Amino acid sequence: MQVILGLGAIKGAGPLPCGTIVFLPNVFSAGQPKGLTARIFLPFLIKKHSMDKPLEPAFSFSERAQQLTSSAIREILKVTERPEVISFAGGLPAPGGFPVEVVRAAFDKVLSTNGRAALQYGPTEGFAPLRQWVADDLNKAGASVAADQILIVSGSQQALDLLGKVLIDKDSKVLVEDPSYLGALQSFSLYQPNFVPVPTDEGGLIPEAITPELADGARFLYALPNFQNPTGRTLNLERRIALVKRAAELNLTIVEDDPYGELRYAGEPQPGLIALAAEYGANVVRLGTFSKVLAPGLRLGYIAAARPLINKLVQAKQATDLHTPTLTQMAVHEIVKDGFLEEHLPNVREIYRAQGSCMLEAIKQEFPDTVSWTKPEGGMFIWLTLPEHIDSTKLLEKAIAQNVAFVPGAPFYCGAGKTNTLRLSFATVPEDKIRRGIAILGKLLKAE
Amino acid sequence: MQVILGLGAIKGAGPLPCGTIVFLPNVFSAGQPKGLTARIFLPFLIKKHSMDKPLEPAFSFSERAQQLTSSAIREILKVTERPEVISFAGGLPAPGGFPVEVVRAAFDKVLSTNGRAALQYGPTEGFAPLRQWVADDLNKAGASVAADQILIVSGSQQALDLLGKVLIDKDSKVLVEDPSYLGALQSFSLYQPNFVPVPTDEGGLIPEAITPELADGARFLYALPNFQNPTGRTLNLERRIALVKRAAELNLTIVEDDPYGELRYAGEPQPGLIALAAEYGANVVRLGTFSKVLAPGLRLGYIAAARPLINKLVQAKQATDLHTPTLTQMAVHEIVKDGFLEEHLPNVREIYRAQGSCMLEAIKQEFPDTVSWTKPEGGMFIWLTLPEHIDSTKLLEKAIAQNVAFVPGAPFYCGAGKTNTLRLSFATVPEDKIRRGIAILGKLLKAE
Repeated sequence: MQVILGLGAIKGAGPLPCGTIVFLPNVFSAGQPKGLTARIFLPFLIKKHSMDKPLEPAFSFSERAQQLTSSAIREILKVTERPEVISFAGGLPAPGGFPVEVVRAAFDKVLSTNGRAALQYGPTEGFAPLRQWVADDLNKAGASVAADQILIVSGSQQALDLLGKVLIDKDSKVLVEDPSYLGALQSFSLYQPNFVPVPTDEGGLIPEAITPELADGARFLYALPNFQNPTGRTLNLERRIALVKRAAELNLTIVEDDPYGELRYAGEPQPGLIALAAEYGANVVRLGTFSKVLAPGLRLGYIAAARPLINKLVQAKQATDLHTPTLTQMAVHEIVKDGFLEEHLPNVREIYRAQGSCMLEAIKQEFPDTVSWTKPEGGMFIWLTLPEHIDSTKLLEKAIAQNVAFVPGAPFYCGAGKTNTLRLSFATVPEDKIRRGIAILGKLLKAE
Repeated sequence: MQVILGLGAIKGAGPLPCGTIVFLPNVFSAGQPKGLTARIFLPFLIKKHSMDKPLEPAFSFSERAQQLTSSAIREILKVTERPEVISFAGGLPAPGGFPVEVVRAAFDKVLSTNGRAALQYGPTEGFAPLRQWVADDLNKAGASVAADQILIVSGSQQALDLLGKVLIDKDSKVLVEDPSYLGALQSFSLYQPNFVPVPTDEGGLIPEAITPELADGARFLYALPNFQNPTGRTLNLERRIALVKRAAELNLTIVEDDPYGELRYAGEPQPGLIALAAEYGANVVRLGTFSKVLAPGLRLGYIAAARPLINKLVQAKQATDLHTPTLTQMAVHEIVKDGFLEEHLPNVREIYRAQGSCMLEAIKQEFPDTVSWTKPEGGMFIWLTLPEHIDSTKLLEKAIAQNVAFVPGAPFYCGAGKTNTLRLSFATVPEDKIRRGIAILGKLLKAE
């Protein structure tokens, strides 16, 4: 089958065989022609037509869509789905921690006793008893929020999207830890902010680095104070207080994302920024999720915030997906309402503790002295800093050739990323594979 | 408790009692101070502090968020939740049509046999067997799509948001039927398009009205060809073909939203625009949902489109909520895979047919000759046109005083709405209440 490009080519090509595919500028676009349209050449007639594989039309994508790319992590994950690969690349929670039978019983109970309500449209704000449970749970940990300050969302990724929607204009300043959670950077990016990195060190975000100049005009600061993704770092109490005080002074809204807080298996629990907020007069928006304490496939999270923000977020969510599934909300409320998490979480923490300790132990044994790493007290991630001459993306190629995967660190930075960093997750890897994979990485690092 | 406004007021007010609430301009905002911050006056110290009801901080909302308002319909629905109100205002499907026991059994089976996979993160594109089922189902009805052209979404409302995200820039031209589905107008509005109405008549959208000037530069045309919300109108075959041909000629993408197509209880089924698309070379994006054929609380729908668009939509969905809940997708696939809908849909259609016929009959008996109405062949809605001097919003006040509710027509128009129109839904109202409510409306209309 002949394929030619452009009208000029048709003129120069002489008689075309019927069925030739011709790519033409998309002359029906507004203003400048955008893209090409494939048409099939029929004598004296250029007609669009579907073929064995239909031709793909051209679209005028929005400016924000043109900058969309697939997540580096997801692309790598695709490569590492082969069963022989030991993958430290994933951000998936350990499926051994999912209380499958409890979830089954809860869905069964809700559908048996309250089926029609569970399957009907529900309020955008969320299922009222679940909102109350979330408020009570936060207040037990020192916060001071009411049920009407809680919006139930379809996983905390949706919280990020909704916050971007209502708070970010093109070029709005948004402060982020550097490095930060890639999914948040991607989500906010759709609203085209101007990311401004807040410096971090071994102790996480440095509150003193938030100068009045840095905070001036910022829509918010996005922070993960517990076992941060990607570094595994946790803010200590002193820094938490300093951060909240500074945010109050500078009238800077803090978005506290805490997906991993309940996965602490070592050290002392620290108060949430939302708990310190009332005391120091700061404005903290809290994001939480049931993904790590129950299961991520449920896609259930929440936002706790001041009422003016919640009201806007509710309106934005209404236009975005009407509401989070009623059935899921009722089932999760059924699960958590009588304290199930208190008996369940120790089991989950033990899975993460065992695998995290195993990985730290293996790293200590296998890695050369030139490499440094974080020692998380919870969560799923360890962050490595390699000697500056080692590019972790190149290292990944060598590792994948030996069936070991991780995520290079550079994409987690909002500006120029440090290419000598990388993230390891221990959440879904059994201990024998952790030891084997770390040994392989150790050999590669020693050879660099 | 004393409340004063501004620093000037403090100066002029003399000694303030401790605890006075002072509203001050939000001086920490970037550029011009935006909003006011409430602070409690303590002698020699103005300090933010939480009180019985915490003070609400001010936010710098995005431009798009500032134009967000709650849906007129939802606000009315709140008023009409009182059990004594006969509400023709809702857009909810009949809960009698929800196959509760079948849904319960499906969730139970998935969680019993495949629980860990159902509760883990899943691919953004959706559960592969469900994508295949949707493609097969569309192809049975004459379309020509592959499973990789299907994106599973969290209800078709999310489809609208994602399309807005990837296709609409500020001031992009978007063609809509006039009137059109309010939820779509709201969803697209967040991306600040320039809506251009396409004229409609008793037969729905008028294809000839789509001139090259009208289509020039339009990102897409949004159309509901079956039992349109709000009018209940259906495009006949002649108009469908004319529309698809014209769209092909003008290189205009059509977004075909078809939530109600399976709820046809009279007349002849018409081919979907997507089925005509291949034949006439048009580019049709198809939105579908399980809300009306199974249950809306599941929040499950899909987009079928050309691959370049699906790829962008997948990237946008990844940043928006990662993926639609795996468990729900697996359960719905379990329900539909062996043809359950074929036995279930006749029951659902019969509910809508009976209630729709009852309402049409009652309208014929009770309404004055000066009122005209649509005669839908399916779906949930009847559209009334009143004499021009009657404002349906004022009529609603009188109706609510007599415990009957409906939705005024004006908000469904993207430009100046016709105030003498209104929408009635018969989906959730039993027949005796339909007769009673329509009789009350009839008396009110005769008195105008």
